[in-house]
Amino acid sequence: MKLYFAPGTCALAVHIALEEAGADYEPARIDFGASQQRSPDFLAVNPKGRVPALVTEQGVLTETPALLIYLAQRFPAADLAPVDDPYALARVQAFNSYLCSTVHVAHAHGRRGRRWVDDDEALQAMVRKVPQTMAECYTLIEHDFLAGPWVMGERYTVCDPYLYTLSRWLKGDGVDVARFPKVEAHLRRMDERPAVQRALAMHA
Amino acid sequence: MKLYFAPGTCALAVHIALEEAGADYEPARIDFGASQQRSPDFLAVNPKGRVPALVTEQGVLTETPALLIYLAQRFPAADLAPVDDPYALARVQAFNSYLCSTVHVAHAHGRRGRRWVDDDEALQAMVRKVPQTMAECYTLIEHDFLAGPWVMGERYTVCDPYLYTLSRWLKGDGVDVARFPKVEAHLRRMDERPAVQRALAMHA
Repeated sequence: MKLYFAPGTCALAVHIALEEAGADYEPARIDFGASQQRSPDFLAVNPKGRVPALVTEQGVLTETPALLIYLAQRFPAADLAPVDDPYALARVQAFNSYLCSTVHVAHAHGRRGRRWVDDDEALQAMVRKVPQTMAECYTLIEHDFLAGPWVMGERYTVCDPYLYTLSRWLKGDGVDVARFPKVEAHLRRMDERPAVQRALAMHA
Repeated sequence: MKLYFAPGTCALAVHIALEEAGADYEPARIDFGASQQRSPDFLAVNPKGRVPALVTEQGVLTETPALLIYLAQRFPAADLAPVDDPYALARVQAFNSYLCSTVHVAHAHGRRGRRWVDDDEALQAMVRKVPQTMAECYTLIEHDFLAGPWVMGERYTVCDPYLYTLSRWLKGDGVDVARFPKVEAHLRRMDERPAVQRALAMHA
């Protein structure tokens, strides 16, 4: 397999999951600074022009929540998600879906607002609200979703690398993670995992 | 089970899947006009204040992509997703993830822009761009994702009610669906399904 990623993006979650699974894969860095994600070569891999994209023996797969469950199913020995328990899997998926459709989107308004508006003043209005929207998301995560020590409780799942990846954005989004003690403890707990350290080294 | 929904929302996708599965459930309509989704009673069900929310025997589940795979796993006889084939399931999930994190989000900038900005001019800037962003999403769907006759090809999956639900928003978003012949044919094909007609009757 081959993982297309860019440092600092949500591809880190998939990168960590690959390391947790002990998967045999090749990392392929995409240079967002040079807009390599819009190059014809990369658009032939992923017409959405986004990372992560995972080249498998069967074809290319995209979208972080999809890739996380794919890895959990494909590497059952790593026990990364309760793939055969419909209710427990749905809870994992609901958390990841909230991250991709609400939390990641809230963050993106600070960095990639031109997806949704053309004029500069509107762009600045979006940037101004990011600390508030991200703090609201993390208030819910802190109080309602993060069971602790891992997102789903005693069991480490693919929710953990995904939450970790987005929690690392809080500082840049103007949110003090110390407001969310369980989230902060989760960040530190993840920092200690060898798989996380190996993935981060490739994102440096 | 009990499905909390509001007419016109993405809960329609889950509603259709429940009907396709022949599930025993009670529909519970939430009145967005009266902001019932922010009422203490509903926030006790779903602290996110959103629909769909599905009350199951084990607890409440949320987020459309999670609910769709839950129903596919729980009602295997309905054959709504290739839940035991990691690659095929990941393709289903990638499509649904694109719908929730990119297409639904593009649409929401026309209706619920106050999630991301406070001032009215920025809100109008968002509204102006919706026809363009939705058309860009559907250009990708038409050319790269919708295999036909169903999203995944010959096999009907939970991608179909979800795509159908969002395609119904195109007109209100200022996009002429006739620009996308495969999408338009998909809409008509879905209209003919009894499960779709039963779900729509409850959204009237």
